[in-house]
Amino acid sequence: MATDTLDLEQVYAFTIQLAKDAGALILAGSSKRTSSTDATTGVDAKKNRVDLVTETDQAVEAFIKDKIAATYPSFKFIGEESFAGGERVDLTDEPTFICDPIDGTSNFVHGLDFVCCSIGLTVNQLPVIGVIFNPFLNKLYSARKGHGAWLNETTRLPLTHPHPAPLPSLGDSIIGVEWGSDRSKNVIEKKGRTFMRLAGDGNEVEGGVMAHSLRSIGSAALNYSMVAAGQLDLYWEIGCWSWDVCAGTIIAREAGGKVYGKGGAPFQPQDLMGHHFFVVRAIADSEGETGEQAQDRIAKEFFALAEEY
Amino acid sequence: MATDTLDLEQVYAFTIQLAKDAGALILAGSSKRTSSTDATTGVDAKKNRVDLVTETDQAVEAFIKDKIAATYPSFKFIGEESFAGGERVDLTDEPTFICDPIDGTSNFVHGLDFVCCSIGLTVNQLPVIGVIFNPFLNKLYSARKGHGAWLNETTRLPLTHPHPAPLPSLGDSIIGVEWGSDRSKNVIEKKGRTFMRLAGDGNEVEGGVMAHSLRSIGSAALNYSMVAAGQLDLYWEIGCWSWDVCAGTIIAREAGGKVYGKGGAPFQPQDLMGHHFFVVRAIADSEGETGEQAQDRIAKEFFALAEEY
Repeated sequence: MATDTLDLEQVYAFTIQLAKDAGALILAGSSKRTSSTDATTGVDAKKNRVDLVTETDQAVEAFIKDKIAATYPSFKFIGEESFAGGERVDLTDEPTFICDPIDGTSNFVHGLDFVCCSIGLTVNQLPVIGVIFNPFLNKLYSARKGHGAWLNETTRLPLTHPHPAPLPSLGDSIIGVEWGSDRSKNVIEKKGRTFMRLAGDGNEVEGGVMAHSLRSIGSAALNYSMVAAGQLDLYWEIGCWSWDVCAGTIIAREAGGKVYGKGGAPFQPQDLMGHHFFVVRAIADSEGETGEQAQDRIAKEFFALAEEY
Repeated sequence: MATDTLDLEQVYAFTIQLAKDAGALILAGSSKRTSSTDATTGVDAKKNRVDLVTETDQAVEAFIKDKIAATYPSFKFIGEESFAGGERVDLTDEPTFICDPIDGTSNFVHGLDFVCCSIGLTVNQLPVIGVIFNPFLNKLYSARKGHGAWLNETTRLPLTHPHPAPLPSLGDSIIGVEWGSDRSKNVIEKKGRTFMRLAGDGNEVEGGVMAHSLRSIGSAALNYSMVAAGQLDLYWEIGCWSWDVCAGTIIAREAGGKVYGKGGAPFQPQDLMGHHFFVVRAIADSEGETGEQAQDRIAKEFFALAEEY
């Protein structure tokens, strides 16, 4: 299929239904898990104890992959579990579905509700469709390029649309961060020091900006969704993968958010296949500063104190 | 009213309805906030920018206090906003309602869903009734001493009841922690180092146990609720107040969880008025170890690495 004849409206409807069906499978897998007397049944370790993978992950990805292959056989597919199984697919200009069957796997294993299925479509290496569905809280975030971002298909995002709040400084923000699965000394110390500067009172902690708070819910896709909703002001992540952020990227963008690459540089297509992500919510224009200028100002303030790796 | 004639079943039903009504007020306050073009309208700073208080907090506490005074005029009342307004009430053996009208105020201000009303009742200085209601996610956690803990009045907690999962070690756990509102150098550095040990790989990070993960959702009462549900394995907090934990304490206990005082010492009545809190979820009995022994083992492992202040 040539991309110039691609009916994105049709693909969008397909993707929303696909995420809903995947969500039903996740719920079914969850009830199987909690009916066991041992919550660790069916749970395996992929790289280490933290990077958990379950049978449900694999079953849900197989379901998604098969549905896509049957409906859009010419589209390429990149998925977390397929990648883990050794399947290497480069990101090209061809339409490519990029999917994480369960984002928030640690939460899923422990029965915590912050779990979602994340399905994105790229064309020319950029996300144009994204659907993130949390079946436990029944929240579906979705976007199609040029047509806005939505909660449960009816509520426009951000939730403050069409009047996003101002954001005077990094100190006024509530920030999504995660401890992630790379627990090596270098990573944990750089993260830890960065978090301490974000939280710390600048009168005592060197470089501290005393942000309103830091949140860690354990799902990159849901962090993007909450930034799109305007519930988090920004989210910073190093180490996750294209399937964690592909859908979130277009949802955040269509909600007026701005995404960045490494160190706060302008986002480039190849950044999706890198591991440095940063996103700031929609900010109101104000006198003398557009919303995008405010986003860039927040990004600059953030990367002046963040220790990247 | 003498405590020996106290009809706790009746008070429990009253408290559940009170939390539901308070939740409706919180939702109404939220829609007022988000309909404004300036999300900070109606928001004031109590001690510092992080410790936010809104008009809605005060209105909800006034509503709760009035309802209690009308129904149980002899009961004492301790509330966050009344305390902030200078009202000092000692915890005695008399029946005492202890209430946080909005726990997760920073979330509330930013439109994030992790917000609840928390209402507990103590008799003889110990919590005997607790109700925590999140009106945004429609989750009501409740317990009455000797009658179990419940989600939405019908689902017994923990969610794995009657078969709580085992918990081999601190490294297998998902842990609730918060950055809190005290952002001084001493506090932030001790917290930060503790978090880094919880997250870090012990092969590289000194004292590291590489827990499955750390979560920060920004509400002490909801952290207790998630421990009661078995969704978090444990929660550690220094610096919050009796109104943040009173309801959660009885909910966690009735769900088979174990609460501790400072440094993991056995919980004493006066600990409710202190600022050191720690709670571990229900753990299955196993060969050679009761669930309570396992909880004590996890607590010991935790306090061997935590830096208290």
